[in-house]
This record gives sequence, C-alpha cells and structure tokens, in this order.
Amino acid sequence: MTKKASIGVTGLAVMGRNLARNLARHGHTVALHNRSDQRTRDLVEEFGSEGDFVPAYSAKDFVAALDRPRQVVIMVKAGAPTDAVIEEFAPLLEKGDVIVDAGNAHFADTRRREAALRERGLHFVGAGVSGGEEGALHGPSIMPGGSAESYESLGPLFEDISAKVDGTPCCAHIGPDGAGHFVKMVHNGIEYSDMQLIAESFDLLRGAAGFEPARIAEVFRTWNTGRLDSYLIEITAEVLGHVDAATGKPFVDVVADRAEQKGTGRWTVQIGLDLGIPITGIAEATFARSLSGHTELRASARGLSGPSRTPLAGAEAERFADDVEQALYASKVVAYAQGFNQIQAASAEYDWNIDLGAVASIWRGGCIIRATFLDDIRVAFEAEPTLPTLLTSGDFRKAVEEAQDAWRSVVSTAVRLGIPTPGFSTALAYYDELRAQRLPAALIQGQRDYFGAHTYQRVDREGSFHTEWATEARAERPA
Amino acid sequence: MTKKASIGVTGLAVMGRNLARNLARHGHTVALHNRSDQRTRDLVEEFGSEGDFVPAYSAKDFVAALDRPRQVVIMVKAGAPTDAVIEEFAPLLEKGDVIVDAGNAHFADTRRREAALRERGLHFVGAGVSGGEEGALHGPSIMPGGSAESYESLGPLFEDISAKVDGTPCCAHIGPDGAGHFVKMVHNGIEYSDMQLIAESFDLLRGAAGFEPARIAEVFRTWNTGRLDSYLIEITAEVLGHVDAATGKPFVDVVADRAEQKGTGRWTVQIGLDLGIPITGIAEATFARSLSGHTELRASARGLSGPSRTPLAGAEAERFADDVEQALYASKVVAYAQGFNQIQAASAEYDWNIDLGAVASIWRGGCIIRATFLDDIRVAFEAEPTLPTLLTSGDFRKAVEEAQDAWRSVVSTAVRLGIPTPGFSTALAYYDELRAQRLPAALIQGQRDYFGAHTYQRVDREGSFHTEWATEARAERPA
Repeated sequence: MTKKASIGVTGLAVMGRNLARNLARHGHTVALHNRSDQRTRDLVEEFGSEGDFVPAYSAKDFVAALDRPRQVVIMVKAGAPTDAVIEEFAPLLEKGDVIVDAGNAHFADTRRREAALRERGLHFVGAGVSGGEEGALHGPSIMPGGSAESYESLGPLFEDISAKVDGTPCCAHIGPDGAGHFVKMVHNGIEYSDMQLIAESFDLLRGAAGFEPARIAEVFRTWNTGRLDSYLIEITAEVLGHVDAATGKPFVDVVADRAEQKGTGRWTVQIGLDLGIPITGIAEATFARSLSGHTELRASARGLSGPSRTPLAGAEAERFADDVEQALYASKVVAYAQGFNQIQAASAEYDWNIDLGAVASIWRGGCIIRATFLDDIRVAFEAEPTLPTLLTSGDFRKAVEEAQDAWRSVVSTAVRLGIPTPGFSTALAYYDELRAQRLPAALIQGQRDYFGAHTYQRVDREGSFHTEWATEARAERPA
Repeated sequence: MTKKASIGVTGLAVMGRNLARNLARHGHTVALHNRSDQRTRDLVEEFGSEGDFVPAYSAKDFVAALDRPRQVVIMVKAGAPTDAVIEEFAPLLEKGDVIVDAGNAHFADTRRREAALRERGLHFVGAGVSGGEEGALHGPSIMPGGSAESYESLGPLFEDISAKVDGTPCCAHIGPDGAGHFVKMVHNGIEYSDMQLIAESFDLLRGAAGFEPARIAEVFRTWNTGRLDSYLIEITAEVLGHVDAATGKPFVDVVADRAEQKGTGRWTVQIGLDLGIPITGIAEATFARSLSGHTELRASARGLSGPSRTPLAGAEAERFADDVEQALYASKVVAYAQGFNQIQAASAEYDWNIDLGAVASIWRGGCIIRATFLDDIRVAFEAEPTLPTLLTSGDFRKAVEEAQDAWRSVVSTAVRLGIPTPGFSTALAYYDELRAQRLPAALIQGQRDYFGAHTYQRVDREGSFHTEWATEARAERPA
C-alpha cells in the first residue's frame, strides 16, 4: 500500500511545482494533481527522484492519497479559477480538513471563502507566498492566514520549507481569515515603493551627479554593505552593471522605460484609501509605473521645457551620492512606516491581532523585500508592539533626523534640476506633515463649512460648530 | 382638474427641496413626494407661493400627477436607499418614462441601475449635481448621464434651472449610463486637489513669508482678480479674513486642523488606479486629509525634529508670495490635466464619447470649482478635442513653462524649511516625469526580469525579452 501524503498540491505550473518539490526535498510525501495530467507526469518524471511524490489523476484519487487532516494546497490563478478548484475539492473533504490558497488572492475574497468553508466544517487558509519561483523552490517567505487550528498541522510543514534567518523560519501564523493575504499584499505594495525609491536614486546619481551606470552599480554595491543591505539593492547593482551583448551599451539603456504593474500595488493603495491610512509612498510608486506606460502621452509632452542641468562633479558629486543614500534610507523608513500602519489599521478593523514584529521577522528572508532593515523593524516592534509609527522608534528616529539635511538637499536639488522624485518628495512631505504643530487642514475645514455647512471642530471647545457665513455678523453656532 | 406636473421630486431633504423650488421658480409645475408626508406639507406651506407644486402623499398619486413622459427625480441617500426608491417607483411607470438619480451615486451603481431599468423600458439618468444647497436653489452645475432620448425631455428643464455663464447653461448631456456620475466624481476629486493646493499656499505664506491670516486674506483677494479668479479662492479670502468672536483670534487658528473626507475623493483615486491614470494630485489631497485626522499618530510624532525656520521678510517675502501664486497656478494645471485625463480614459473604456470642452464649460458656473480657469480649459478642448494633456495646450504650456522657475523655488524653499507641500511636490514631479526623455522605469523592468522573469521590452527591437540572470553568460532570449 502506498504511503499516505502529508500534503497535496493542485495546480502545478511553476510556482506550484516548486512548492511541491520544496516540500518533497524536506522529506514530506506530497500528493500531486493538475487539471491536465501531463504536468503531473512531467513533474514526476523530471523531479521524482527528489522525494516522495504521489501523483493523482483525479480529484478523488488526490484526496484519497492524503493523510488526515487532509491539507490541499491550491496554486492556481486568483479569482474564478480559485473558486472553481475550491468547489472541486471541498465536497470531497471532511470536517477538519484544510484547503490552502497559496495564490495572490484579494484578502476580501479570502475572507469570503474562509467564512463559506468554515460553515462547511473546513479550514481555509489564505497563504501569501513571496519569493517568486526561486523562493518557492529554495525557501520562500510564507504568510498563512486562517484558524489557529489549521496552523497546528500546516505550520510545521510551511515553517520547514520556508527561508530561515538566524535559524528562524520566515513563516508565522499571521491571523484569522484574510490576514495572510492582506499582509502579502502590503509586502508587494512596499516592494513597489522600494523599487521606485531605488529607481529615483539611480536617476539622481545619473542626472545630478553625472555617474554612468557602471559607476552607479559600484555605488549600490557599496550601499549593500551598510544599512541598506538588501536583495533589491543587490540585484540593482547586478542589473546596472550588466552590459547588453548586442549593442555593448549599458543594459539599462536598451530596456524600454515602461514599467508594468500587477494588481497588488494597486490593491494596496485602494485599500489604504478605504482604511483611511496615508500610504503615499506606495501610491506614488504605483502611479509612477502607470505614467511610464503612457507612451503617447509622454511623447506629446517630451518637448515641455525644463531647467538646464549641469551635473555636479568631483567631490561635490561624491558628497551628493552620500546624500542620496541618506535620502533613500529616510524615504524607505517612511514607506515602511506607512505600510506597517496599514497592517495595524486592518488588524484593528478585522480583529486580526497581527504581531507586527513577527511580520517584520518573516520578511527578513525569502521574499523580495528581504533586508537587514527588516531585522531593525522587528526589534522596534518587539520592543514596542503598539508603536504608533516606526518614525518615532528610537533608532529609526535618530537615523531619519540625522538624514534629514541630506534628504532635504537631495529633494531640493532634484526639484531645481528637473529630475522627478515623486517617491522621495512624498516621503519627505509625510515626515513634515506628521511632525507639524498645525496643518492647513484647518483652512479646509473652514472652506467646507463655508460652501457646504459641513461644520468644524474648535481647538478650545468640544462639539461641532457652524458659522453663518452668508450673514453680516457671521455668528457661530453649535451644530 | 389639476394641471399635470412636468417633473416630480421625491426625497425632500434640503437638496431635493431646493431643486424642487428652483424648478417651480422657473415656471415648471413640480410634483412633490417624500417618505414622510410632513416634509412635503412643510415645503408647500413655506414655499408654495414660489410656483406650482403638486404635493402627493403616495407613490401612486405622485406618478399620477406627472405628464408623459414622466420624469421622477430621486434625491435620497446613495446606496440602498436609492435602490429602494427606484423599486418603489419603477413598477408604477410606463415605457419611455424617466427616473433621475440626482444624488452622489458611484458610477458603477448607476451603470447597473441603468442597464436594469433599460431592460424594463425605462430611462435611467444618473445626474451629478454640484453646488451644494445654495447651488440647488439658485443654479447648480448639472451633469446628467443617460440615453440621448432621456435628455430630450429632461435637458430643457435642467438647463433652465442650472447656473448660466455668459448665457450658456451649466448643464449638458455628458454621455450614456454612468458618465454623468463619473464626471461629477472627478469634479469632487479635483475639488479636493484645489483645496489642498490652496491650503498649502496658505501654509507657505504663513510659515515661509511670515504673513498673518488677515494679510494672507489680502493676498488671496488680489489673486482672485487674476487668472486664479474662482469661487474657492474667493471664499478662502473670506475664511482667512474672519476673526473669531469668542477669542478675537483669526478664525483659522481656532479651527481644529483635521479635515474630513467624504467618499468621492477616495473613489476618484481608486478608479484612477483601476484605469491606470496617474491622478497624483487628487491622491495626495485625499491622503493629506486622512493624515490630518490621525490625531494620536500626529501627537506621537510632533516631537520629530525639523529644520529651523527664519521667515523671509520685506521684498523677499513679497516676491515669495508672487512665486506661490505661480506655483499654485502650475500645480492646478497639473491637477486638472490629470482629472481630464481620467475622464478621457473612462470615456474610452465605457464608450461614453464625452465632450471634454462641454465638461469644462458646465463647470464654469454653479459648482464648487467654478473659475475663470475653466473657460480657458473649455477653449483648449474646443480647439483640440483629443488633446493628450492640458499641459501641452498653447496657453497652458506657456503659462506653466513661465511659472516653473518660481514653482521650483517654492517647492525647494518648502523642503528646506520643513513645510509640507505634498500637492505642489507631486504636481511638479508629474510635470518632470511627463517631459522626461527617459524614466528610471527601465531599471524597474530590469529588476522585475531579474527576480521574477517578468521579461522586458527593448528600445531597439520589437518583442519581449528575458535575460538569464542566474547564469554567468547572462544571455538574452526572446520571451
């Protein structure tokens, strides 16, 4: 009799296949299933020697191959395909079994599915998986959301195959229902922001300091030995150092300057708006990608005049590069502060009780934004779990306050030279808004009361008030 | 026998009541209906002498009072209440009759309702109405979306009661189904942006030029005689000039600096993201309002250090005020360019065939953003209906190019002094992105190909490519 599998994977495109192989390589017996049988056969043929696979060619056989509680990992396209696969398997499962959606679902879909399957006695886990194809195979960062009970059986397996940092798995139970997919979404939003800030740094080093890509690659390599040490900085140096074989030009100069955007950056911003959390860094990054793709619009506007640019030189250019490092660091702190605030707000809204230190901890390895920086964030939230913003945490506060002269100088230089830095600029504006004694929102309240009788609050008395703007006396009355 | 009414209004809270009175004052016989009869009776008692009203105390009587094609204007809360009222009246109407939702519906709801009622042989019009209570009574800007046939009967009435600019009504048929509510939504988004830019101007004049509110009121009064001439600038001067009776302090100083945000600003940004249109001005304005309301977060961050501020003085302060006028003007052009691009994109997406010149024309009066400026936009779109962006239209281009030195100087000053200007900054970044020969999005494409094999395009060849980053040779292959 065949050994029962401790987990099964259905949907064996590259992500599903690599997750299955990762599980098998760690000694787990893995049942395999795919809509078309060929993919299942190919996996066994190519990688069967890596571990114990139990190929199944029907949903029924797949389910029969699983040990109780059965754990079915679905890795198919988000949306209708996910619902279809859930409906295929749910009727075959029994009370206490676990369905895991390891795709990039919208957290609201995950909440809906979890509630529906809970009614039917099944656990539904929405697991964010970050790290791409390579991560899935060699150790991703995994963010499972669902019942605590589901994590009892699933957790050990997922922790086993996840990336490790200092021996700690990059996987933790995030919280109930949609919590895992929510946190994965914010991860992706922060990734947008990180990439935009790096892109602006490159643009500044080139446009203002006059550095060539190979030289800029060196700068990034140096930065990668310091507090900015991270996967994205590392690969940026690789990309910038790469020379195109066909033309002999820097690779970055032969690539079309149109960035693509997938759904998760957009979702992060849309949900930030619903939650009322200013996540301006992610918003600007998402919009910057959209803008880059508007080819015709850009062609029509390319003739608009700008200031003349005389690049800096010598020691001034070197100093500018150091300033950019500081601006990048400070802007990054702001972007992460905003992203963690969004998780905090969702956690409160949906009663998820998310441990922000744990989130930072599991982002330290396996995922795209993995970085030394995240260990600093972990430390900050472990010291103060309800920290209102990263910006006021001891070390970050000190670093940003020390960076701010350079930060202001870089943004000011960009503005004078006509180099667009929407990410740096919005991060700095956020910092200045947050620390402002008074914001001009008071004027906006006055305007709204004037044209729409929307009322306002006062600084010196409780209650809502309205001013009779149309009358001569302009009397104020409680509203 | 009673005269039949040419139109009826159901929902007689202040907006509905004022619309009904406006119609009656223009000589139209108006049927009245409200869920509770008291409001209907009150209207007739208080304002019955203003024109011909036909009060009705049941849905059936209300419908019976209307001439064919019957025109029923619903003015109730958006969402479920609107659906409920539609379901109350639709069964009583006949083929060719018209239901008008004059509330602030989401355009997607309007599309759904229009499609459903069209099936039942009824016209459904989603009409944006701007101008608040006063506008509804004395002449609003009206943006009706629906079938061309519905506008034949409804148009003359709505044009009649709308605001007029140079004898032209501030009402025009916007396009099919959700077009009217969409345009109204963008109007509100732009209103957010306008108000934020004005608020930043105030903050700059105070923080950098050292002007007191009364002095700043004077500055706005002067601006209102030039190209910035608009309702919002006018009322800003009024609000800033107002002195609080209780304390003798400037009114703006006793108002809590927490702005409220209603749904439409948020919707505009969320839909801008769906359409892939960068509307960073509206996004920053919406987030700035959210941020102002985070009282505890702001309290915790108020101690973050900033640069020291020495306000400008004398002629330098005067010159700075002139620079702010230019920065405000240029930023405003950007915000409107983005908003009109969003309307363009939706028009293409939903086949609405919206006339942008007509939109600008009907925003010239009646609504909150009414301004001389909108006549300039009307002229620009009438000259070139498919203008890719307002920024490249002759006069605007010239004005922004001329303003840019001052614009850059103002943003740079704000950054150095620590005065947050998210609206000015994002507008300038957009301008510099739009005119950039190359954007650093090329680097982002390289990064995405590196970590996710997302492929990229080249500048010199057609097709998609992928580089084998993990191999020594880093060969490129078509993808």
